[in-house]
Amino acid sequence: MRTYEQLFNLFTEHLSAFRGELDKQTPPELYGPAVYITGLGGKRLRPVLALMACEALGGDVKRALDSALAVELFHNFSLIHDDILDNAPLRRNQATVHTKWNQNIAILSGDALLVKSLQVLGQYPAEELKSLSGLLINTALLVCEGQQLDMNFETLQNVSINEYLRMIRLKTAVLLGCSLQMGAINAGSDLIQQTHLFHFGENIGIAFQLMDDYLDAFADDPEKFGKQTGGDIMARKKTFLLLKALELASPDERKEINRLMQSPERNAKEHVSRMLDLFRQLKVDEHCKRETERFTNLALEALNNLQASPENKLRLHGFATELMNRQT
Amino acid sequence: MRTYEQLFNLFTEHLSAFRGELDKQTPPELYGPAVYITGLGGKRLRPVLALMACEALGGDVKRALDSALAVELFHNFSLIHDDILDNAPLRRNQATVHTKWNQNIAILSGDALLVKSLQVLGQYPAEELKSLSGLLINTALLVCEGQQLDMNFETLQNVSINEYLRMIRLKTAVLLGCSLQMGAINAGSDLIQQTHLFHFGENIGIAFQLMDDYLDAFADDPEKFGKQTGGDIMARKKTFLLLKALELASPDERKEINRLMQSPERNAKEHVSRMLDLFRQLKVDEHCKRETERFTNLALEALNNLQASPENKLRLHGFATELMNRQT
Repeated sequence: MRTYEQLFNLFTEHLSAFRGELDKQTPPELYGPAVYITGLGGKRLRPVLALMACEALGGDVKRALDSALAVELFHNFSLIHDDILDNAPLRRNQATVHTKWNQNIAILSGDALLVKSLQVLGQYPAEELKSLSGLLINTALLVCEGQQLDMNFETLQNVSINEYLRMIRLKTAVLLGCSLQMGAINAGSDLIQQTHLFHFGENIGIAFQLMDDYLDAFADDPEKFGKQTGGDIMARKKTFLLLKALELASPDERKEINRLMQSPERNAKEHVSRMLDLFRQLKVDEHCKRETERFTNLALEALNNLQASPENKLRLHGFATELMNRQT
Repeated sequence: MRTYEQLFNLFTEHLSAFRGELDKQTPPELYGPAVYITGLGGKRLRPVLALMACEALGGDVKRALDSALAVELFHNFSLIHDDILDNAPLRRNQATVHTKWNQNIAILSGDALLVKSLQVLGQYPAEELKSLSGLLINTALLVCEGQQLDMNFETLQNVSINEYLRMIRLKTAVLLGCSLQMGAINAGSDLIQQTHLFHFGENIGIAFQLMDDYLDAFADDPEKFGKQTGGDIMARKKTFLLLKALELASPDERKEINRLMQSPERNAKEHVSRMLDLFRQLKVDEHCKRETERFTNLALEALNNLQASPENKLRLHGFATELMNRQT
């Protein structure tokens, strides 16, 4: 079985060819942003998962290249539109599409990229296409639902842990599950195997997001993590840590947390360290770790149920572990 | 063969059932706007064309209902996003989605509606789905290209008549062709018949848009037309009339047209009537009528090539004529 790096390189080559073709299409204002954002790099997690799943189930990895491309294009469409919604100026330290061009171009080129993500699946035979596009389309709607829930949370007073878990499941985790399942479809696996892989990806995705929340506040080495410690606190984001803290806090502690959340940003530094103290005091760091572990175990259970060679399962397991131990 | 009204009612019933289901889905901020915009009414031109094509080619009209739904949902997605791009407060005298909710919701609910338009095609058997979704996806990209060209025209000094015709073909005409072709696919027709119907719709669409440009300036009965005479002039839109006028004008006339185009809006009334005088003087009204006729004839030629009963062809012809004689 190929290594992550080999699959990454295989995909990168396929993506490059696609971007080269896209770059020739007109009008450039419509397709240029797609060429730009798909060229900003990244781990290419989703497409590599699709390739890995296909190979693990005995398929020809090349057969999954267009599935991998479809999920990566879909992911990049969502980045273009999410950056507008979040009013984000930067993505991977480069200007976001709506900043580099303008908002109208970002809306329209995002639309075109969403359509392109489905167009590339047109290469597959009819039955395979029906399964793949049905799955990607259903997943796309879940991702939109998750994004809307995330937007709703910004103005909600009370968000429960369960609602939060549902949101991250929809907004980020299901697309990882979808990527793996698409690879399984390309390998010709039955729905049971497909579903095991979907659950593996979905639960790893939730665990991954919870760990991200944890590391944002408690990374041993913030430089390695690549973000400023307490970035979520400063941005007043409703993370697992904050929501769990509010759940466990005494009335006085809850008052203080809410006061800190509403304090003006110029107090950021004290604000952050006081919030971190409260998090530790309420042991939400430990809760977050335990919850991460719980979803990691669910993922491994799904993997265990998969009918694949021990070697291939170990490879997927190793990939998940690698992912969970990442500091970037 | 069923009348327009019968097909309209058949589709409306199908759409209502879909909207009822959509209205139950959560979060309501994501699906509510789709329920809202698909409930604003209208002629349902595209879905009726899909049903009509299916019937004309001997298919069961009910088989085309989900194709009809898909094109109508796609059209409504494009309305939500176009209204953001155009900064339009009203659509059919009702608040646009980004006005009634907000811009972020309009972006995201538009995305979801675009995905939904492709999801409803998932009902068809694999081969039929492959043809239908391939066509709708290719058309969707052309529509995005047309919308981008239209946006580009706003800031371009020189736009040729050919570029203008290309833009309206992409932005509005191809979706009419697509609607008809989808109906033909549902009827089980071969690619030759499909293509005749596509060209029929495409050319009728261009003729329709040219007539719209004409009526905006020269409608005998503006109230019946439903818009204020000269609305395009006041909005400084680059229509066929304006572009042809610039092409035919003497240097002095061109200077005057450009001066009128740049004059502040408060001079709108004199501005409009002077521009209309120039249009008549340069005979661009006649040019526009001739061009409309040319595309109508191309449409009828395509219809003539279609292998359908004379009665069914007459029905499609009648529909096109009805459309071209419409004042609303």
